[in-house]
Amino acid sequence: MSDLLEQRPDSKDAKQGAFPNSEKVYVQGSRHDMRVPMRKISLSDTQTSEGRTTPNAPVYVYDTSGPYTDPTLQLDLEQGLPLVRESWIEERQDSTFLAELTSEYGQTRRNDTRLDELRFNHIRRPRRAIEGKNVSQMHYARAGIITPEMEFVAIRENQNRDQHREITKQHPGISFGANIPEEITPEFVRSEIAAGRAIIPANINHPELEPMIIGRNFLVKINGNIGNSAVTSSIQEEVDKMTWATHWGADTIMDLSTGKNIHETREWIIRNASVPIGTVPIYQALEKVDGIAENLTWEIFRDTLIEQAEQGVDYFTIHAGVLLRYVPMTAKRLAGIVSRGGAIMAKWCLAHHQENFLYTHFEDICAIMKAYDVSFSLGDGLRPGSIADANDEAQFSELRTLGELTKIAWEHDIQVMIEGPGHVPMHMIKANMDEELQHCYEAPFYTLGPLTTDIAPGYDHITSGIGAAQIGWYGCAMLCYVTPKEHLGLPNKDDVKTGVITYKISAHAADLAKGHPGVQHRDDALSKARFEFRWEDQFNLSLDPDTARAYHDETLPKDSAKVAHFCSMCGPKFCSMKITQDVRDYAAAKGLQEADDAIAQGLHEQSETFLKQGAKIYS
Amino acid sequence: MSDLLEQRPDSKDAKQGAFPNSEKVYVQGSRHDMRVPMRKISLSDTQTSEGRTTPNAPVYVYDTSGPYTDPTLQLDLEQGLPLVRESWIEERQDSTFLAELTSEYGQTRRNDTRLDELRFNHIRRPRRAIEGKNVSQMHYARAGIITPEMEFVAIRENQNRDQHREITKQHPGISFGANIPEEITPEFVRSEIAAGRAIIPANINHPELEPMIIGRNFLVKINGNIGNSAVTSSIQEEVDKMTWATHWGADTIMDLSTGKNIHETREWIIRNASVPIGTVPIYQALEKVDGIAENLTWEIFRDTLIEQAEQGVDYFTIHAGVLLRYVPMTAKRLAGIVSRGGAIMAKWCLAHHQENFLYTHFEDICAIMKAYDVSFSLGDGLRPGSIADANDEAQFSELRTLGELTKIAWEHDIQVMIEGPGHVPMHMIKANMDEELQHCYEAPFYTLGPLTTDIAPGYDHITSGIGAAQIGWYGCAMLCYVTPKEHLGLPNKDDVKTGVITYKISAHAADLAKGHPGVQHRDDALSKARFEFRWEDQFNLSLDPDTARAYHDETLPKDSAKVAHFCSMCGPKFCSMKITQDVRDYAAAKGLQEADDAIAQGLHEQSETFLKQGAKIYS
Repeated sequence: MSDLLEQRPDSKDAKQGAFPNSEKVYVQGSRHDMRVPMRKISLSDTQTSEGRTTPNAPVYVYDTSGPYTDPTLQLDLEQGLPLVRESWIEERQDSTFLAELTSEYGQTRRNDTRLDELRFNHIRRPRRAIEGKNVSQMHYARAGIITPEMEFVAIRENQNRDQHREITKQHPGISFGANIPEEITPEFVRSEIAAGRAIIPANINHPELEPMIIGRNFLVKINGNIGNSAVTSSIQEEVDKMTWATHWGADTIMDLSTGKNIHETREWIIRNASVPIGTVPIYQALEKVDGIAENLTWEIFRDTLIEQAEQGVDYFTIHAGVLLRYVPMTAKRLAGIVSRGGAIMAKWCLAHHQENFLYTHFEDICAIMKAYDVSFSLGDGLRPGSIADANDEAQFSELRTLGELTKIAWEHDIQVMIEGPGHVPMHMIKANMDEELQHCYEAPFYTLGPLTTDIAPGYDHITSGIGAAQIGWYGCAMLCYVTPKEHLGLPNKDDVKTGVITYKISAHAADLAKGHPGVQHRDDALSKARFEFRWEDQFNLSLDPDTARAYHDETLPKDSAKVAHFCSMCGPKFCSMKITQDVRDYAAAKGLQEADDAIAQGLHEQSETFLKQGAKIYS
Repeated sequence: MSDLLEQRPDSKDAKQGAFPNSEKVYVQGSRHDMRVPMRKISLSDTQTSEGRTTPNAPVYVYDTSGPYTDPTLQLDLEQGLPLVRESWIEERQDSTFLAELTSEYGQTRRNDTRLDELRFNHIRRPRRAIEGKNVSQMHYARAGIITPEMEFVAIRENQNRDQHREITKQHPGISFGANIPEEITPEFVRSEIAAGRAIIPANINHPELEPMIIGRNFLVKINGNIGNSAVTSSIQEEVDKMTWATHWGADTIMDLSTGKNIHETREWIIRNASVPIGTVPIYQALEKVDGIAENLTWEIFRDTLIEQAEQGVDYFTIHAGVLLRYVPMTAKRLAGIVSRGGAIMAKWCLAHHQENFLYTHFEDICAIMKAYDVSFSLGDGLRPGSIADANDEAQFSELRTLGELTKIAWEHDIQVMIEGPGHVPMHMIKANMDEELQHCYEAPFYTLGPLTTDIAPGYDHITSGIGAAQIGWYGCAMLCYVTPKEHLGLPNKDDVKTGVITYKISAHAADLAKGHPGVQHRDDALSKARFEFRWEDQFNLSLDPDTARAYHDETLPKDSAKVAHFCSMCGPKFCSMKITQDVRDYAAAKGLQEADDAIAQGLHEQSETFLKQGAKIYS
C-alpha cells in the first residue's frame, strides 16, 4: 500500500501563504453565520511633491482563496473545511441524511479495505431531498425565496463597493444586452436565477462551499481544470492543484480525473474545496467499463451520477446533445470530435446505432439533479477542435439541442449552463454568443477559450485568452481556462497558475469592456500607485504580486529601488513619469495652474484664451 | 578599456540555430539578385488507419530570421550582413556616397580613439540623395516606378501560396474595410505605397535590409523593442536580443537605447540587421544635453537625425504632435504622460513656453527624411498610460495633429506611419482605429498593444496581446510588442522571445479574422498533424517548436511517445482523437460511409433520409 500512502495529501501543504499587505476580511450578512470573504489590500500613503502626505484607501477584491488565507483558522486536509452552509441547508427541512451511500459503486469503494489508507477519513452520510421535494436554488428562486446562498453571492459580487462608490469613475461599457445593476441585491440574484440567466452551483452535499454565481449580469468567472490521468499524477498533486488554482483566482474547479482512484481523489478535493466542483461523470463511467465505450449503459451512468452527487459535486457536464444524426456531420472535419465526452458518446451511438442514452434518459437525469441540487453544464461534445471546424453544422446543431434540453431541465427547476467552444477565429466568436443566447434562452454560457489560432501549442493560454476576453465581453458568464500545456501534456502547478492568471486577465478585461460597475477601481488604484512610484502598492494590487516583485527585482533588487522615483527601464533621466511630475510642478510654479484649473472646471474657452495668449509661437 | 571590450559582440553568437525540419529557401524574383527568403517546413507522411501512406506537402512560412538561418552563409558580426540592396540603390543613380559623415556628433564619435575597441570595424561612407532628388519609396511609387523593394515584398507577402492555393479553404473574414487581394502583385504594392496606405521602411544606408511592408492590406506585422538604459545592458546583449527577436518573428526592431555608447550600439545593430530598425532620436538628443530637456535645441536634434540617418535607421519616431496647448490636457490624468518622448517634449514646451520644435521644424525634418528615405513613425507622445486615461482629449487632439503632419510629409513623398496606444479597454479600441483611419487618411497604424487592463504587471504581454489582436483585426498594420517585464524592468532574452511569440499570435489571429488569403493554411496543417498524431509535425509547424516539444516531453519524454496515438493528457483509453478515428473506421465498416459521403457531396436530404431510417429510436 505504500504507493497509495504516497498519494495521500499532506496536511502541512494546506496553507498557500497570504497575499502581501492583504487581510482576509468578512462582510457580515443578515445572519450571524453568513460571513462573506474578501481580500483587503492596504496601501501606503501618497507623498506629494510638495511634501504632503495623503492616505490611499484600501482596495477590496473578490476572494476565491477560501479559508486557506484566513490566519485565524487551523486547517487540516484530513478534516476538510468548515461547513459554512450546513445550517442553511438544514433549516430548509427539505432534505435528510441517508442511512448510507446509495450508489452501488460508492458502497463498493467504501467496503474495499485496501483503500483505507488512501481514503479521506471523515466521510459524512449523504443528504438527499425528501421524496417529492426539489432542493435546487432555481426552485427556491421561482418560489420567491431568497436563500442565504443568494444573499451571500449578492454581497460577494458587490466587492465592498460602498467603500469607493463615490470615488470611482469609469468608462461606460458596451454590454451587448447585459443588464448589470449599479448594486447587486439579493432580490436581483433571485430573479436572475428564477429566469435561468444565472446559476449558483451548490450541491447540498457540499456544505464547505462559499457560494458564487455564474451569469452574464454578474462578474465574469473562470474555471480551472485539474485531474489525474492513467499515465500521471496523484491525489496529493490534484488536491494541491485545486487549492493552488483557487488561491490565484479560480472561481470553480473541474476535476477531470480519468486515472486511478478517482472516487477517492474526488472526495479529498470536495471536502477541501470552498469553490464549486464540476465533473464529467461519463469519464468515470467509462473507467468502470474498462474504457470500452460500447459497454456503457444507462445503469452504470446513473449509478455514477448518484455516487458523485452524494459526494457533493456541484455541476455535471452531460453530453446529452451529441445526437446520433449529428455524428456523421463530423466525419469530414479536419479534427473530428475533440471533446472526450463527445467522442465517447458518438462511439456509443454508432456502435449501438441508437440515440445517445443521455438524451433518451434526460428526464431520469433531471430527477437525480434536483434531489441534490447538482447543476447541469450541458456539454458541447461536438465543439470544433480546429479553426477549420469552427461554427459548423455539427456544432450548431448540438447547440440547438442543448437549448431544447435547457427547457426540459427548467421544467424541473434545475439550474443549467451551456458549454461552448473551443477553436474559433476572432471574427466568428460573436456568432457563438449570439446563437447561444438565442437558442438556449440566455442560460449562462461557459466556454473553453476559444482559441483564436491553432499555430501556437505551448502558448494556448494566450491564443485562447484572446478569445476568452472577447466572448466574456460579448456575454459569456464563465471562461474555462486553458494552460500552456494544452494539446501537449498535463498541467503542473506552474501551468495551473499561468492558466488562472491569464484567465483572470481575460475575465477582468471583459468586465471592464462590459462596464461592470466598479471594476475599474483596481486598475485605477494600481495605475495611481505606478504613477506615484509606490512600487510595493503596484505589486500588491496586481493579480500576481510575487511575479511582479520578482521581475522588478531582477534588475533592481535593493529595497531602496522600491522607493526610487525611476526604474530600470529608463533610468532616472528618462523617466516619463518623473518628467510628467516635473511638468505638473513646473506648470504650477509658472502659473500654468490657471490653465490646468480652467480645464478641470470644464471652462474650455477660458483655457483656450489663456493658452493662445501664452503660446505666441503658433499664431 | 576592458569594460568596453566586454561589451563588444561575440561573432560566434551570430547563428541562432535552425528551426527543426525546416529549410531556408529563396523565391527568385525578376532579377538575379532578388532572392526572397522563406522557411519551408517539411512534414512526414500521413499513415491512414487502412495502412495507406499519403504525403503532406511542405508548408512555407514568412521568414524574418535573416541570413542567420542560412547554413550556406559564413556570417561574422564584425563584418555585418551581405548588402542585398546595394545594387538596387546604386542603379537608381539618385544618391551618392558622401565624403564623410556629415553629422557633428558622428564625426566626434569617429574621432574618439578611446572608442576604437568598441567600434564596429567596417563603417562605410554614408549615402545621401543627390541635391534635389527624393529617394523615398513613396516618391518612386508616385512616379509609377516599381522598385526591386516593392517586388521583393510582393513575393514575400504571398508566402509561396501558389504551392497550396488549390487546397486551402478558409473562413471568409470580416475586414472592416481592408481590401486584400487574392494575390499581392508588385503593382498593388506600388499603388498602396503611392496612396500612403503602406510603407516600406528602407533607408538607403541600410543595404543589408530584406524589405518588408507595413499596411493594413498586407500581413499584420510586429515590432520588438530592444535597447540599453543607464542602469543596465551592453552592446553584446542588445545585438543578441535583436538577432534573437528576428529569429522568432519580429518584423522590425526599435533600438530604444538611452544608456552609454548608443551611437556605437546602433551601428552594430544596423550592420547586422536584416529587418528595418527604428529609433526615437529625441532619446539620444537628450543624452547629448545630459538629460536636461530644457536644453534641447533644434540644432542638436537635427544633428542627431542626420547622424542616425547616415547610420541607416529606417524609421524615426518623431513626437511632433505634442503641442503646447495639449500639455495641460494631461494634468488631470491619472497617469499623466507616459511616453518618454512625449514627456520630454512637454517639458521642453512648458519650460520655454514655446511650441514643440519638432512641430515648428517639421518641414526641415522632412528635408532630411527624404534624402535618406527614413520613414516617419509619428509618435503618440500623449497616449494614455492607464485605462482611466484612454481615448481622452489629449490623446485624440494629438492624433488629429498627426493627421495634419501626415499630409505635410506626403507633400514631400515621405512614408508615414502613425503610432497609437497604449492602455485601452477592449470596447474603446475600435474607436482608436476608426479615428486614426479618418484623421490620418489611412496611413498605417502602429500601436503598442493596447493593454486592456492595468491589473497584471508581469503579464502585460497578455493584457496587451488581447488588445493587439483586436486592433490588428480592425486594421492596425503593425503591433509593437510588450514583454512580461513591461512596467517592471528591462526585458532579457526570454522576455523578448515571449513578447515576440505572443505578438505573432496576435498578428496571426488578426490575419485570420480579416480573412487574409491563405493564412489559415498553417493552422490547418498543424491541426491535421495534431489529429493524425504526427507529433513532430505539430511541434515543427508551431511558432515555437522548442517549447512545444519540451512541454510534451515533460510527461512523455520517450521517442516512442512521439509516434503514440495518445498523449499524457488523457492516456490511451480517453483519447478523443483516437475515438474519433474509431468512429470513422466504425462508420466506414458498418456502412455509415454512405451517410458520410452523402454529406460530403452536400446531399443533405439523402443523408437525412438515411439517418431517419437508421436511427429508429427517436421517431
